Amino acid sequence: MTAPPLANLINELTKLPGIGGKSASRLAYHILKRTSGEAEALASAILEVKLKIFRCPICNNMTDVDPCAICSDARRDASVICVVEEAYNIATIEQTRDFKGVFHVLLGALSPLRGVGPDDIDVVGLIKRVQGGDVREVIIATNPNVEGEATALYIAQQIRPFEVRTTRLAFGLPVGGDLEYADQVTMAKALEGRREI
Amino acid sequence: MTAPPLANLINELTKLPGIGGKSASRLAYHILKRTSGEAEALASAILEVKLKIFRCPICNNMTDVDPCAICSDARRDASVICVVEEAYNIATIEQTRDFKGVFHVLLGALSPLRGVGPDDIDVVGLIKRVQGGDVREVIIATNPNVEGEATALYIAQQIRPFEVRTTRLAFGLPVGGDLEYADQVTMAKALEGRREI
Repeated sequence: MTAPPLANLINELTKLPGIGGKSASRLAYHILKRTSGEAEALASAILEVKLKIFRCPICNNMTDVDPCAICSDARRDASVICVVEEAYNIATIEQTRDFKGVFHVLLGALSPLRGVGPDDIDVVGLIKRVQGGDVREVIIATNPNVEGEATALYIAQQIRPFEVRTTRLAFGLPVGGDLEYADQVTMAKALEGRREI
Repeated sequence: MTAPPLANLINELTKLPGIGGKSASRLAYHILKRTSGEAEALASAILEVKLKIFRCPICNNMTDVDPCAICSDARRDASVICVVEEAYNIATIEQTRDFKGVFHVLLGALSPLRGVGPDDIDVVGLIKRVQGGDVREVIIATNPNVEGEATALYIAQQIRPFEVRTTRLAFGLPVGGDLEYADQVTMAKALEGRREI
């Protein structure tokens, strides 16, 4: 009984990650209630992003300039490369304002179960950058899960011949958390990685 | 450091209800990863909905035909009107497949705190339909909260002169729930509304 254009919008919205039927419906009715100008702004933002955004040829970040704003920023230290799985992980690291190096986006993580092997992620691009000779350190910031760990070990192995410092993000208790809620593995990592104070 | 077209899309997405910064970012990167065709389908669905959908002149439902599919369905009983706050509430009631009557969308609920008074919701349209004379029952299906209750009482009062049966949805325990988790008010309503078995 839902009008077809409305049903179509709800259907398109459910294709987005984390948007189920009820959320899609709430979003669609919200769009209906807003002005045409606001709906057009959203629609054109969607189209524009597909037209103007491409992957940086150096680091695979999403960008509208070649090379991307990070790779072309002279104030950043190109000798420290932080390796992440996806372009959106860059924002999480940039938020800290503590990292002054550059990035390399792998475009995924090794996952034999999902059929993602070494040729499906961009390790070759990273190795070429390391081979260039100006790299001092590679910080591996893949996700703290099985796939991320496997990917980190694989990359470390591939980089070893070039004698570049290779590091992995620290594992431990999340700040603001409660000891009581820490799982066994995290707790073990926190003990293992304990530091003098 | 996020590319402007991407930052713009993320900003537009955060204007949607229930979409915070992180969700907007996840949605934007998802759209970037999909094909241009898929992005165009979403963008045109947004535009189309604004072009083709309007409010049914009888019941205020969102529709692309005049009158809406429910009001124009001869198999439905136009003598029973279910009153809801918003057009999206219709879907929730239709899902039960138990209701064969028609609807009336108020376009809101009375809320003195938010400055929504009797003139801001469509009670006049409902009264006109009741005055028409063919209505046997008005089922008030406003939300089970303070605003919804106030609105239900106001509508009941306004309809009284026309001597039409006026009912309110039942309050009680949600099915599938656990007695332990029922709040006091719901439990009191469940006791009060108890039925012979």
